[in-house]
Amino acid sequence: MPSTATLTFTDRLQQRIDAADSLLCVGIDPTIARMPEGVAPSVDGVIEFCVNLIEATKDDAAIYKPNLGFFVGLGRRGLEALWEVRQAIPQEIPVLLDCKIADIDSTAKGYATGWFDEFDFDAITVNAYMGEDSLAPFLQDAARAVFVVCKTSNPGSGDLQDITVQTDLTQPLYHHVAKRTKTWNETYPATVGVVVGATWPEQLREVRALLPDQPILLPGIGAQGGDLAASVAVGTTATGTGLLCSASRSIMYASSGTDYADAARTAAHELRLAINEHRPRG
Amino acid sequence: MPSTATLTFTDRLQQRIDAADSLLCVGIDPTIARMPEGVAPSVDGVIEFCVNLIEATKDDAAIYKPNLGFFVGLGRRGLEALWEVRQAIPQEIPVLLDCKIADIDSTAKGYATGWFDEFDFDAITVNAYMGEDSLAPFLQDAARAVFVVCKTSNPGSGDLQDITVQTDLTQPLYHHVAKRTKTWNETYPATVGVVVGATWPEQLREVRALLPDQPILLPGIGAQGGDLAASVAVGTTATGTGLLCSASRSIMYASSGTDYADAARTAAHELRLAINEHRPRG
Repeated sequence: MPSTATLTFTDRLQQRIDAADSLLCVGIDPTIARMPEGVAPSVDGVIEFCVNLIEATKDDAAIYKPNLGFFVGLGRRGLEALWEVRQAIPQEIPVLLDCKIADIDSTAKGYATGWFDEFDFDAITVNAYMGEDSLAPFLQDAARAVFVVCKTSNPGSGDLQDITVQTDLTQPLYHHVAKRTKTWNETYPATVGVVVGATWPEQLREVRALLPDQPILLPGIGAQGGDLAASVAVGTTATGTGLLCSASRSIMYASSGTDYADAARTAAHELRLAINEHRPRG
Repeated sequence: MPSTATLTFTDRLQQRIDAADSLLCVGIDPTIARMPEGVAPSVDGVIEFCVNLIEATKDDAAIYKPNLGFFVGLGRRGLEALWEVRQAIPQEIPVLLDCKIADIDSTAKGYATGWFDEFDFDAITVNAYMGEDSLAPFLQDAARAVFVVCKTSNPGSGDLQDITVQTDLTQPLYHHVAKRTKTWNETYPATVGVVVGATWPEQLREVRALLPDQPILLPGIGAQGGDLAASVAVGTTATGTGLLCSASRSIMYASSGTDYADAARTAAHELRLAINEHRPRG
């Protein structure tokens, strides 16, 4: 479908959100030790498992999010497995690689070449600690997006993110990061979103107020126990979009039996509907 | 050599520093487009090139530092190439993977499994923005080390790292990060060092004052033009150790001809001696 090549990431994502009536981000976090009954506990088994999961959940997914950490955990064949998984995702569904990277000049260009040009991921997660120039190589193409880690779902997220900083205002660091992403979203061709964990609905509300139109990736609604209803109510845009609610383990491992794909399909379908229930409609 | 299995990272590194009389960290940042005359511009060519570079520089290297970004840039065979490169490094020389990662619980465990258990890297670089619990899975083994990104060499490093924060003190964020690493170094079995760019000698002096004994990885002395003499003078410990001076491109691409390995050997040798010239001897 060559027409998508000219779409911006924002338009391509919104087309998919509308077509599937879905804000569900299906995370792909495979571990050999958790392969269900009937799947070989091997890298080849992981590939087969992920391909079947994608087939089972593709009607309900707005976007897929493979997480690099789990593929690195597979060892030397990790990128080969990631490649096969990426190839199995239907062309009309955007794919976000969760890799939380950033680095200086030529190194960042290496990552951009790999994740965008070679693997053709539509978006990646990035870390802003190294500053704007460490992200710039990822921001050059309107067909791509980055999601900047802003307020993460884990208990230790306050260590740095909640520190009070003195800039033009006195504010928590994650507010400063959020505001920087607004500037970057306006300055660069690529879409710049943020990552805010569903374990922090009040902070999500603040970030949405700072960034009325940017996409927000929301991890933590599944196994991590984040508040789905509160998050969807405060995290969507005024038109009820722009929030990608990510669940991984609660879908992937919905059953440890041979019915894992059907169980994943049901879990994804029910979660898509549960999200929509709380979603304001513009 | 089973004896090394029981050494802490700190002891293993110091043994190598002493044996080679070297504080030189040889970075491995391969790009297909920069392969020299006589080397195929392919993934296989990159592997051959890196193996020859390692052989040429092994007498002068205190530690090797492959950078994940360049291997990702190779595409789906990137981890296979990284594996081959890692296997080519002599057992007595520690290896630090520059990957600047951190992530929550099970994801961080995936990275730890991959980089430590599967690839057997001795150390990795990490990013503290997500807080202590996002680093804890990397800190459980005294034979391993992490180097926390603290004050990076790039121009945009001030975007977040230099912001004034209010904690117990009013200080720049990178001071707060440095102090956190001191606590982590005392709390966890693994060695915790920091990354400070050679483009900031005054900030390096401050970090060394905060962290008298922890290892510091110093990028930026080669192609980036950092100040070697000033950095070595202020960045080493009281006994003239604990600073790993990293150069990549200035060694790897010392010649674009068929003599690239000899040129790399000479560049590494001269750089080792230049570092030692400025090194206080305890």
